[in-house]
Amino acid sequence: MSLPRTVDWQGDAASGRLVIIEQTLLPAELKLIELTELDPVIDAISRLAVRGAPALGVAGGYGAVIALRSGLGDAGLERLADARPTAVNLRWAVERVKRVAEGDPERALAEARAIDAEDVRTCRAIGEHGAALIENNMGVLTHCNAGALATGGMGTALAPMYVAHEQGRAFHVYSDETRPLLQGSRLTSFELAENGIDVTVIADSMAAVLMQKGKVDLVITGADRIASNGDAANKIGTYGVAVLAKAHDIPFYIAAPKSTFDASLEAGHMIPIEERNGHELRFVGETRTAPDRARVFNPAFDVTPAGLISGWITEDGILKAEEIAAWLG
Amino acid sequence: MSLPRTVDWQGDAASGRLVIIEQTLLPAELKLIELTELDPVIDAISRLAVRGAPALGVAGGYGAVIALRSGLGDAGLERLADARPTAVNLRWAVERVKRVAEGDPERALAEARAIDAEDVRTCRAIGEHGAALIENNMGVLTHCNAGALATGGMGTALAPMYVAHEQGRAFHVYSDETRPLLQGSRLTSFELAENGIDVTVIADSMAAVLMQKGKVDLVITGADRIASNGDAANKIGTYGVAVLAKAHDIPFYIAAPKSTFDASLEAGHMIPIEERNGHELRFVGETRTAPDRARVFNPAFDVTPAGLISGWITEDGILKAEEIAAWLG
Repeated sequence: MSLPRTVDWQGDAASGRLVIIEQTLLPAELKLIELTELDPVIDAISRLAVRGAPALGVAGGYGAVIALRSGLGDAGLERLADARPTAVNLRWAVERVKRVAEGDPERALAEARAIDAEDVRTCRAIGEHGAALIENNMGVLTHCNAGALATGGMGTALAPMYVAHEQGRAFHVYSDETRPLLQGSRLTSFELAENGIDVTVIADSMAAVLMQKGKVDLVITGADRIASNGDAANKIGTYGVAVLAKAHDIPFYIAAPKSTFDASLEAGHMIPIEERNGHELRFVGETRTAPDRARVFNPAFDVTPAGLISGWITEDGILKAEEIAAWLG
Repeated sequence: MSLPRTVDWQGDAASGRLVIIEQTLLPAELKLIELTELDPVIDAISRLAVRGAPALGVAGGYGAVIALRSGLGDAGLERLADARPTAVNLRWAVERVKRVAEGDPERALAEARAIDAEDVRTCRAIGEHGAALIENNMGVLTHCNAGALATGGMGTALAPMYVAHEQGRAFHVYSDETRPLLQGSRLTSFELAENGIDVTVIADSMAAVLMQKGKVDLVITGADRIASNGDAANKIGTYGVAVLAKAHDIPFYIAAPKSTFDASLEAGHMIPIEERNGHELRFVGETRTAPDRARVFNPAFDVTPAGLISGWITEDGILKAEEIAAWLG
């Protein structure tokens, strides 16, 4: 991996700093920013300079070190945990560090480093298992960004690609641009290209014709939340890709850590779907793209039923649908 | 229809003017421009102020009147016919007017008006036939813009919606935004909303989840070229919509005039597909969205096989696949 780490800690607890890739500048500019105070950390999280559930967990752990060494106490930790209300991993990491550290920045840093190291290991394990699916000369399609830029490690959906690349296999990745926020073109194509993997950006509507022409042999995406029957919520557009893959007899895999599975949900229809601001479809930058008189529909996620999913690539191996419930325990 | 005509002629041959909607300003601003000299007509065509195959035919006919009355002769007509090299209807209309007019602007205007009137009649006939498919409370999905803004009349794919609306039926239209050039959000949602039809803009990747939730009862799109077996080339993304419609048991119709069918093509694989500049996927406005190190793939069209098409809505009725060859004669 030739890119710097998405989230890192440099130095000791007392005087060290949280270093992150400023993702709002990608793909135009690769810039690292150093954070030593709590407010800039909260700001970086809320304006999406760092994003992706696992990466937010790692950033939250290190952010808690900064809150504690700054003497901001529980109030500071609470503000940090709330920096992105829907980011479950952020609150989870802040509370884990708080519980273990008992106010001590040194112990907080040790726990934050443990969260970071666990994420790195989980990503690699997903990559090792998933890499077995990628053969020489394959075309692999992905949607959105579930890569190094979204985790502390080498990603989830992209991890099998990084490991297959390390193992010397040659293959080609197609990255859906992923409207409306373009995480596929801005982030996935950037990190794959920077790390030496052959990647082509397509509009989301072009995946079908690539499948029709036999250019796609395998689809791997991440997931935001998975029910115990295997139904998977992921970035809007994933369901359509899964239907297209099925229609073209192309295997479709979800790559996600165990923490993404929610044993309390029996099926995907129980997963709440956030609807985002219509502005994302009415404007691109400053340019108006849809009139106010037209309505817009802008769901952030969709749910892919387990029946369309060939397997779930986890840190413990590639699961079949019927294995998930027992594995969750 | 409360919008002004996309292409119109006002006045007589000697001193009249070609009046068009300046489509590059949509949906932010509705502005008409008046053209009385050949160079501004050619400029308007080449910078897409007027676009859509039938609309370019009508504009080409009226443009030929201007070329002839300006004494620019065959050289002027040739420059006009070449203003957009891939627009078959433009050259066809210019040559038709040239042949009939024999240099006389009065006769040229009569022929240009005939081309215009034929297009209006063809669109309405498509609308009358297709409107029978639209029932009260249906959700109807379309892709790209095959509407009044693309023709001299009420469009092709949108014509059934306009006629069903005239007939008093209430229904809802979903308009794919249609990346990369966003004709669905910029043009289709604009003209439908302005003409009083309830319309919602979605990202292309959201069509699948609407189908999954039972919101789409019917899909109608236009076509750029149709082979004699019914395979239809249309704006990139149409094929994917057709596969998704099939997977959800939703009827998928193509609406197009007879002139779109090419009896010389046995099947869709013989239709050449233009690949457009990758800049359309690397930038949105001034903002970079994909890095130069990543490749891009940007086909303008895809081909939907006849087997995915429920029927072809033409000015002569709704055809089945096996009826096309005989109807073409």
